[in-house]
Amino acid sequence: MQRIAVLTSGGDSPGMNAAIRAVVRKAIYHGLEVIGIQRGFSGFVEADMGPMNLGSVADIIHRGGTILRTARSEEFKTPEGRAKAYANVQRFGIQGLVVIGGDGSFKGADMFNNEYNLPVVGVPGTIDNDITGTEYSIGFDTAINTVVEAINKIRDTATSHERTFILEVMGRESGYIALMAGLAGGAESILIPELRHSMDEVCEKLIRGYKRGKLHSIIIVAEGAASGLDVGKQIREKTGLETKVTILGHLQRGGTPTAFDRILASRMGAKAVEMLMEGFRKHMVGMLEDKIVAGALDTAFNGKRPINMEIYNLANILSI
Amino acid sequence: MQRIAVLTSGGDSPGMNAAIRAVVRKAIYHGLEVIGIQRGFSGFVEADMGPMNLGSVADIIHRGGTILRTARSEEFKTPEGRAKAYANVQRFGIQGLVVIGGDGSFKGADMFNNEYNLPVVGVPGTIDNDITGTEYSIGFDTAINTVVEAINKIRDTATSHERTFILEVMGRESGYIALMAGLAGGAESILIPELRHSMDEVCEKLIRGYKRGKLHSIIIVAEGAASGLDVGKQIREKTGLETKVTILGHLQRGGTPTAFDRILASRMGAKAVEMLMEGFRKHMVGMLEDKIVAGALDTAFNGKRPINMEIYNLANILSI
Amino acid sequence: MQRIAVLTSGGDSPGMNAAIRAVVRKAIYHGLEVIGIQRGFSGFVEADMGPMNLGSVADIIHRGGTILRTARSEEFKTPEGRAKAYANVQRFGIQGLVVIGGDGSFKGADMFNNEYNLPVVGVPGTIDNDITGTEYSIGFDTAINTVVEAINKIRDTATSHERTFILEVMGRESGYIALMAGLAGGAESILIPELRHSMDEVCEKLIRGYKRGKLHSIIIVAEGAASGLDVGKQIREKTGLETKVTILGHLQRGGTPTAFDRILASRMGAKAVEMLMEGFRKHMVGMLEDKIVAGALDTAFNGKRPINMEIYNLANILSI
Amino acid sequence: MQRIAVLTSGGDSPGMNAAIRAVVRKAIYHGLEVIGIQRGFSGFVEADMGPMNLGSVADIIHRGGTILRTARSEEFKTPEGRAKAYANVQRFGIQGLVVIGGDGSFKGADMFNNEYNLPVVGVPGTIDNDITGTEYSIGFDTAINTVVEAINKIRDTATSHERTFILEVMGRESGYIALMAGLAGGAESILIPELRHSMDEVCEKLIRGYKRGKLHSIIIVAEGAASGLDVGKQIREKTGLETKVTILGHLQRGGTPTAFDRILASRMGAKAVEMLMEGFRKHMVGMLEDKIVAGALDTAFNGKRPINMEIYNLANILSI
Repeated sequence: MQRIAVLTSGGDSPGMNAAIRAVVRKAIYHGLEVIGIQRGFSGFVEADMGPMNLGSVADIIHRGGTILRTARSEEFKTPEGRAKAYANVQRFGIQGLVVIGGDGSFKGADMFNNEYNLPVVGVPGTIDNDITGTEYSIGFDTAINTVVEAINKIRDTATSHERTFILEVMGRESGYIALMAGLAGGAESILIPELRHSMDEVCEKLIRGYKRGKLHSIIIVAEGAASGLDVGKQIREKTGLETKVTILGHLQRGGTPTAFDRILASRMGAKAVEMLMEGFRKHMVGMLEDKIVAGALDTAFNGKRPINMEIYNLANILSI
Repeated sequence: MQRIAVLTSGGDSPGMNAAIRAVVRKAIYHGLEVIGIQRGFSGFVEADMGPMNLGSVADIIHRGGTILRTARSEEFKTPEGRAKAYANVQRFGIQGLVVIGGDGSFKGADMFNNEYNLPVVGVPGTIDNDITGTEYSIGFDTAINTVVEAINKIRDTATSHERTFILEVMGRESGYIALMAGLAGGAESILIPELRHSMDEVCEKLIRGYKRGKLHSIIIVAEGAASGLDVGKQIREKTGLETKVTILGHLQRGGTPTAFDRILASRMGAKAVEMLMEGFRKHMVGMLEDKIVAGALDTAFNGKRPINMEIYNLANILSI
Repeated sequence: MQRIAVLTSGGDSPGMNAAIRAVVRKAIYHGLEVIGIQRGFSGFVEADMGPMNLGSVADIIHRGGTILRTARSEEFKTPEGRAKAYANVQRFGIQGLVVIGGDGSFKGADMFNNEYNLPVVGVPGTIDNDITGTEYSIGFDTAINTVVEAINKIRDTATSHERTFILEVMGRESGYIALMAGLAGGAESILIPELRHSMDEVCEKLIRGYKRGKLHSIIIVAEGAASGLDVGKQIREKTGLETKVTILGHLQRGGTPTAFDRILASRMGAKAVEMLMEGFRKHMVGMLEDKIVAGALDTAFNGKRPINMEIYNLANILSI
Repeated sequence: MQRIAVLTSGGDSPGMNAAIRAVVRKAIYHGLEVIGIQRGFSGFVEADMGPMNLGSVADIIHRGGTILRTARSEEFKTPEGRAKAYANVQRFGIQGLVVIGGDGSFKGADMFNNEYNLPVVGVPGTIDNDITGTEYSIGFDTAINTVVEAINKIRDTATSHERTFILEVMGRESGYIALMAGLAGGAESILIPELRHSMDEVCEKLIRGYKRGKLHSIIIVAEGAASGLDVGKQIREKTGLETKVTILGHLQRGGTPTAFDRILASRMGAKAVEMLMEGFRKHMVGMLEDKIVAGALDTAFNGKRPINMEIYNLANILSI
């Protein structure tokens, strides 16, 4: 193997740059050449790509977003689009591809491998942490710290006013961000799509807390479970308590990556290069039991990652 | 003068604790006693108050919110409510009152002074910075830094995706937060209630930027000017650009106060005590031309603070 | 088991409060009573302790330090001191003890158990992450994020000036903070006590980098490996490059705990209570392979945790 | 005037990039061309310079350091060096120069103007805030916020341990950083070069505080007043209290600029361009009484800025 390519795809996440840096430097260290593909599969189809060197990834480890940018490509979903991409594989002499992104991006890479047999390795990068086959994806730790900081700030004003605050967070169909940030932030209730929730129980817990002297209550709502605005309205109607709703939105995708995400991204990016060199052809990097491991690429999109009930129950116990 | 009282009223803002600390310590330094009133005018009416000492305000300078809490009091708006409050003034031997809050709170204090002649000094504490008679109110600097951090995070993901981001910020009828945070954040457009804005011009500027190679655009919308969701929808419809909307909400009221807000609060709190000792009876503390000064209390609620057009024009020039 | 006690001992670390909160709330949830012991083993000897309830641990999850405070106790190291402590065990009806701290604290707990047979469970809390038997100790993640933020700031000024910066970090005899923060911060060289280092090689790498166009170099020095000031002086003498030294010091022990540390602390604190209820008598909580597990208490202080050479080598490869 | 140049000189400070951006965009807005000079007067002498456009300053407003870099130039101090620089002025057609830096840089610009009559305008950029003729220099607000964050972190661990912490901060011969950060951080004592201090009084205050129940004490030492290590040693010897010393070092020069510094830098940079266009020839921009004003360039280096005694006394009163 002499030349590999790397792209970032799907929603960006903090730490993607650290992963790109690791892919490039690890590859160069082993004498490989690296092609950087711009704007995900769009650039792959449109030949928007070029060589990267050590300097291309200098001073990027601490930056949010991705220097390769990302986009959603409708064209790559068509056989014609993928044929164009393969023409670029031949033109640029690409012998292996690292795809940094989420399960949708892995699915695209899987299909491309099935058709054209280019070795691909997926590196899980999404704040949602919803990928089966890895306990952590790049960006999740930064995202929950962003949410926890938001909870800290809301707590200040909540205490002063004796109010109920609702915070809607990201995660698409997954409740991981809500659950882990809710536990870390000491939220009173956490609503996630994986579990049915009863607004009556949420309200009873609120009332119980205020009767016991709690000065404020913070409720975290995963976007996949409910709308923060709806939850606020229901609580107001059922309890008469004043509620204020905050919607963090895309804030959660940005920011300087945490140490954890930088280390994870560095290790995963380097592992992806090793895997290509060792002949892996349709695989993903994962972190399982605190180790960086190789897994089958389709693990990521076959089956849904279940929520950790032990953590959920712990969050409930600690917020009594 | 031997005994004064202090309360925080209206929306809380970061630095109110630093102001309380300054009132208490400055007063004790001069041999005065201090009564802390809980939950603003509510506690004033309900006699929810008690003596404060040096230790009461230890380790609070860095905390957001207010240890005295705040609330809105319907009762204080009635003559009966204010009569109860005056009974407490007599019962607790209060000879002067420091009110930390916004123009609404100052109005309440003004009315109380008119009726019962208790010397009152207002300390401007609101993130909105909409109080006439002071160039800065406590909490504004922290709030715009919170917004600027949000812009930083959104910028990361905006660059990666070539999208347009809309950020709705607080300020009630004032555009100060939007304007100053927009200038500091390098936003492409800033929509404020003080000025009419044309969505066509906003869109033309966006298109012009993208044609010139801009990777992202960030638009700041003051809550008093428009709804962030509406602005996003209009831009999408007029330009076809993908837009993402973030609504910061009450986040902007929280957080550890900045150095600027702590210093401002410390100086203003101390000045309020001096003013009471010097015989001021219906006044407010202000920062004018970088000096802490005494002004008439009704300055705050008579007349509206105009927006600084020099700053607005500068923001426009720098975001070309 | 009806009543347990909890103390924090040794150097404080961010997340200790989250662990205390988890111990108290988990215990109360299961119907146990909790005694909080002040100032570590000092308070244990001097009966400086009292009951804790749900409210005792409200609003502490986000605070650095430890509300139970910590101290080093010479008296507890003597048989007389421990006898006094045991008298307090009897007086307060303590049937189990949770010790949150480092290996030294665990050693004290082990000795006390040997003599008086009180069931003890250790919860690893130290920024140094030097405890055998757990992959992460509470506070480590926060500490490396603090160091990484410092590197970010130094990087700004380093780039502007084309200088070499040396950053001395904590860790006592361990290089874990230096290694992980160095990898995450993209440091050019990392000096740790576990490995011999050659200043000549460090200097050669520096020179090589500058020749290739690197604008700055950052060198992380673990306090156990060398003095930052010495390293700066040597580089200056050997290369003629201007060097600037920063010594972070106790900053690294403080700060709001990260999400990771709060979750780790919550899980470990709860686990400690479970372990006492299940009859564990001289054990520690650990995180191994991403799971919270029980281990023998003496694991912590018999044998030294080796450095992760895979990570060390990766850091070297990525900083070429 | 058709073409101006801009450089940053001396120690870098956060916000310099925002100033460069303002100079470039304001100039282009008015139809001027801008030459960016690299590495301060060094690049001026060595012709290390080139044209800047709108894109040159995109996405830099939030970055610490300076994209034009900075250096100290021995050559510019010689008549020969300045003659070379003037040759570049002619070669590149430079008709006016904006110098962003401290008093030393202004002195160099002043001398150059005396000899070659090139119009120069100085923009005060230094974290030290020691420039006469302006109440705030670019970077000061960010630096004191960095120090205040450090105090926050130290406070956590100080409270847990009942210790005395000493924090040495920058400022060269000025105590401004120490004074303002000390007031904002609630430090017990502040040692600045402008005032003689008695270690006996510092120690008495410490003892008094501990006797009254203070859990911790934090002492800020300006580098121009004393060495933090010495102060720690003296307190230990005089009081027997345990002391821990932290030396922040160049950390204080870095970091994302605060909103205040970005706004100040944007306004000052734009004003400098206006001043050149209006015919000012040897002047500086200043912020006086909250207004951006023009002043004589030699104001900056003739006379020393006195410390604000009102603030110093307030800090003392509030830390009782």
